[in-house]
Amino acid sequence: MTEPHPICSRFHIAVELIGARWSGAIIRALFTGRHRYAEIKQAIDGVSDTMLAQRLRRLETEGIIERRVIASSPVQVEYHLTDKGHELEPVVEALINWSHKWVPLPPAPK
Amino acid sequence: MTEPHPICSRFHIAVELIGARWSGAIIRALFTGRHRYAEIKQAIDGVSDTMLAQRLRRLETEGIIERRVIASSPVQVEYHLTDKGHELEPVVEALINWSHKWVPLPPAPK
Repeated sequence: MTEPHPICSRFHIAVELIGARWSGAIIRALFTGRHRYAEIKQAIDGVSDTMLAQRLRRLETEGIIERRVIASSPVQVEYHLTDKGHELEPVVEALINWSHKWVPLPPAPK
Repeated sequence: MTEPHPICSRFHIAVELIGARWSGAIIRALFTGRHRYAEIKQAIDGVSDTMLAQRLRRLETEGIIERRVIASSPVQVEYHLTDKGHELEPVVEALINWSHKWVPLPPAPK
């Protein structure tokens, strides 16, 4: 794991992209099959509508997720991982494994 | 890759820990053998002393790196990954692979 100086800018961009507040949790939610806006929101403790909408737009701009409008009544909006997003699976898996070993569970809310 | 609702808080904590501004780049620099403060700073384009010092302290508090003072003249400060930090290697490797496929190189500075 050596490479020319300085630290690869692509790694640097990638780590801060998935680590931006809420972004990792949104990507994780989509891997577990939550696709509708309300399902994603429900899966992520504490996220506000403003933040969630902003992050979904950012991830869409980055080409990690795509937004689909389902012609139902009422109209539904779904989000899916693109190929670029799907290929984050090894990263997400490795980080889940690491976190289950090293990150203590936060105290349960009262 | 399914798990009970909501998204595991440990994953959420972990992804935002390594994705915090500069943190991923610092961890990456330590994997490539840059240990002294000045070497780490040199490896990371654009980081200020204030930010680097703050991030090193945070990563030390989180138990991901440790700080050693070398009794030399002048005194040198080195940083090393702990076991917890070293075990991020699969995450870092997976993210390097992903970024080399999906993240375009930023334009070279003039």
